[in-house]
Amino acid sequence: MYKNCIIAQSGGPTTVINSSLCGVIKAAMESSQIHRIYAANYGVQGLMKGNIIDLTDVYMEEVELLKCTPASALGSCRYMLKNWEDSREEYERIFRIFEQYEIGYFFYIGGNDSMDTVDKLSRYAEHINSDIRIMGVPKTIDNDLYGTDHTPGFGSAAKYIAASIMEIARDGATYDKPVVNIIEVMGRNAGWLAAASVLAKKDVIGAPDLIYLPEREFSIEKFISDVEKCRREKKQITVVVSEGVKDSNGIYIAEYNSGKEVDAFGHIKMGGVAGILGDAVKDMIPGGRVKTIEFNVLQRCAMHFASGTDVEEAYRCGYDAVNYALKGETGKMVILQRTSDKPYICSTGLLDVSEVANREKKVPLSWITPEGNFVTQEAIEYIQPLVMGEVDIRIEDGLPRYSMISPII
Amino acid sequence: MYKNCIIAQSGGPTTVINSSLCGVIKAAMESSQIHRIYAANYGVQGLMKGNIIDLTDVYMEEVELLKCTPASALGSCRYMLKNWEDSREEYERIFRIFEQYEIGYFFYIGGNDSMDTVDKLSRYAEHINSDIRIMGVPKTIDNDLYGTDHTPGFGSAAKYIAASIMEIARDGATYDKPVVNIIEVMGRNAGWLAAASVLAKKDVIGAPDLIYLPEREFSIEKFISDVEKCRREKKQITVVVSEGVKDSNGIYIAEYNSGKEVDAFGHIKMGGVAGILGDAVKDMIPGGRVKTIEFNVLQRCAMHFASGTDVEEAYRCGYDAVNYALKGETGKMVILQRTSDKPYICSTGLLDVSEVANREKKVPLSWITPEGNFVTQEAIEYIQPLVMGEVDIRIEDGLPRYSMISPII
Repeated sequence: MYKNCIIAQSGGPTTVINSSLCGVIKAAMESSQIHRIYAANYGVQGLMKGNIIDLTDVYMEEVELLKCTPASALGSCRYMLKNWEDSREEYERIFRIFEQYEIGYFFYIGGNDSMDTVDKLSRYAEHINSDIRIMGVPKTIDNDLYGTDHTPGFGSAAKYIAASIMEIARDGATYDKPVVNIIEVMGRNAGWLAAASVLAKKDVIGAPDLIYLPEREFSIEKFISDVEKCRREKKQITVVVSEGVKDSNGIYIAEYNSGKEVDAFGHIKMGGVAGILGDAVKDMIPGGRVKTIEFNVLQRCAMHFASGTDVEEAYRCGYDAVNYALKGETGKMVILQRTSDKPYICSTGLLDVSEVANREKKVPLSWITPEGNFVTQEAIEYIQPLVMGEVDIRIEDGLPRYSMISPII
Repeated sequence: MYKNCIIAQSGGPTTVINSSLCGVIKAAMESSQIHRIYAANYGVQGLMKGNIIDLTDVYMEEVELLKCTPASALGSCRYMLKNWEDSREEYERIFRIFEQYEIGYFFYIGGNDSMDTVDKLSRYAEHINSDIRIMGVPKTIDNDLYGTDHTPGFGSAAKYIAASIMEIARDGATYDKPVVNIIEVMGRNAGWLAAASVLAKKDVIGAPDLIYLPEREFSIEKFISDVEKCRREKKQITVVVSEGVKDSNGIYIAEYNSGKEVDAFGHIKMGGVAGILGDAVKDMIPGGRVKTIEFNVLQRCAMHFASGTDVEEAYRCGYDAVNYALKGETGKMVILQRTSDKPYICSTGLLDVSEVANREKKVPLSWITPEGNFVTQEAIEYIQPLVMGEVDIRIEDGLPRYSMISPII
């Protein structure tokens, strides 16, 4: 019997979340068991509102372009469902919509919190004896999802960060003057992205010189002495720091600026950690300069220099999610299983989504040097294969041509 | 008779300043009149100190890689020579070094101030009856050099900015919430880079919505009302602003933050214009957010997404500088002469360097809309050809492999 499927995206955008979307759509199109392909805009929140579009007859070209289109083509949300034991209203609303659209399969592409949604919905489905199959497709630049070797989105962010740090360090070496570059990257609790910056080190400039991850306690005094030590050996140095580093009291370093300053309009300022660390060493660099750089959202959406491996794996996770569901699976997240570093071999598998939800995978402490200011060879070997391969994005008039599938049209 | 040549770079780095360096070296290698190829590290300051390297026998591979290596492979300086009528000491030192190294040709790759150096040195050479030939090779991301249709470095910066704005605007459209992105780009007095952001508009998101250039007086009140007007039509909007916008009193908007705030270490804070504008509209976006983004130095060194046209033209400027000098020219800057937009046709020419030095080319006021918050079709037609073409950078292990020629080794 024919059934329809519905897809949604959740959580922060990534460079390759739409590659997974493309994989889901392509596999659904190829299946003889799936009739219409629906999508909910703005995640489970949009689903509850009935904000649903039909992708079945969208131009194939726009579907293909999704594979190399960054951010979230369906729109996203940050929303946690209540436990259905406490409040069934949202669940009833969602399942009424499933029924209305004759949905047999629901694919949810997202991170930690989104897997909680997959978990709750699939358990509710079991409870009400619904045969709808609900599958999670992983994504997050933070690489902190439990149970998978790595997450789609991480490799592209890692590649962008490493390449950009190479270029920024070269820029900083322009003049014959002392420079301290302090670069802040995303990562609230897990330092995978900061760790990835180590790949830039192969360039002749040799940046970064210091890397700080939130997995280790951060001390401004130790940081200052680390910078002093590096500066004795090199005129120009580069420091990479996770936004989420905390001190021995468990307080985010970034918070030390917050509340102390008020802008011209009376708002409290929330300072970035790079700025705070820059201020701490400013006076140590006579005749030189401290440059603080916060990588903005480009680290999670720079399809213009994405990882080919990442794009293909993200696509594969979406594609396989459909086929696993067609084979009868439900309540599972597709995972990536690496069986070899050199040569790199990786295939998809499944994990019960209840094991994934609300857990975090951090950088192993043994991958951080004893000094706490750099990462080890193990980290390099783990990250290196994930940035391999380039992506041939469609270029028109010298600029990317991304898919026109968008929540705003 | 054999002579040697010497090359140096000056001013801020660009994505393609080394493409010009590559062009100079390749033409010098091909010439039977040039013997050894020297370079001064850190510009004319390094030259005066005798900080000179010999590139004649450098691995050809590293020379070829320069074509696609960002920032300044020779190192640079910001230094203006005094008038030789007032102080001859520096001139005598430089010409002693020229004599010592048997220099017949000096190529200086740089912007406005660097052309002043070329001008002064070539007039001094004439004065002392030296037959050394001194040529300027243009570069600057700001595109503000007088006498040339555009400058090498601008096209790559324009391409990076436009592509990144496309991606940032998509990222900002992720959630079903109001967003105002405020993006600050370089450009102290000329708004070419802000103008280039218009090329992103072809994407489905349609960013940017507002563009402000320093050529037009800036009013925060007008800005607030512009944002209000846009917000009535679109939930998520993107504003691009030149760092150098000034108010009716000629004061940089960015200065309004300066001196009012002091960081935790007692330093006075110099705020960026994006932050100030963000603060001004923060309260207008209930339930939404204002995101302020300062494009960091990547806009001038992101070889990972450079313009193929720009790289080739930068190379050609360096290459032709050598051949013009061999034909007897001196005291000239190589210029780019566009003879057609569609198809784009552009060749090199020469201009007396005294006409270039210390002048600025701004965006014509007629290319800015009457409202002062966007650019016209003329601007698009002028900039569009300059971002065309992609660059095949050498990739090793998934990351750029840049030339190892560097001032720090």
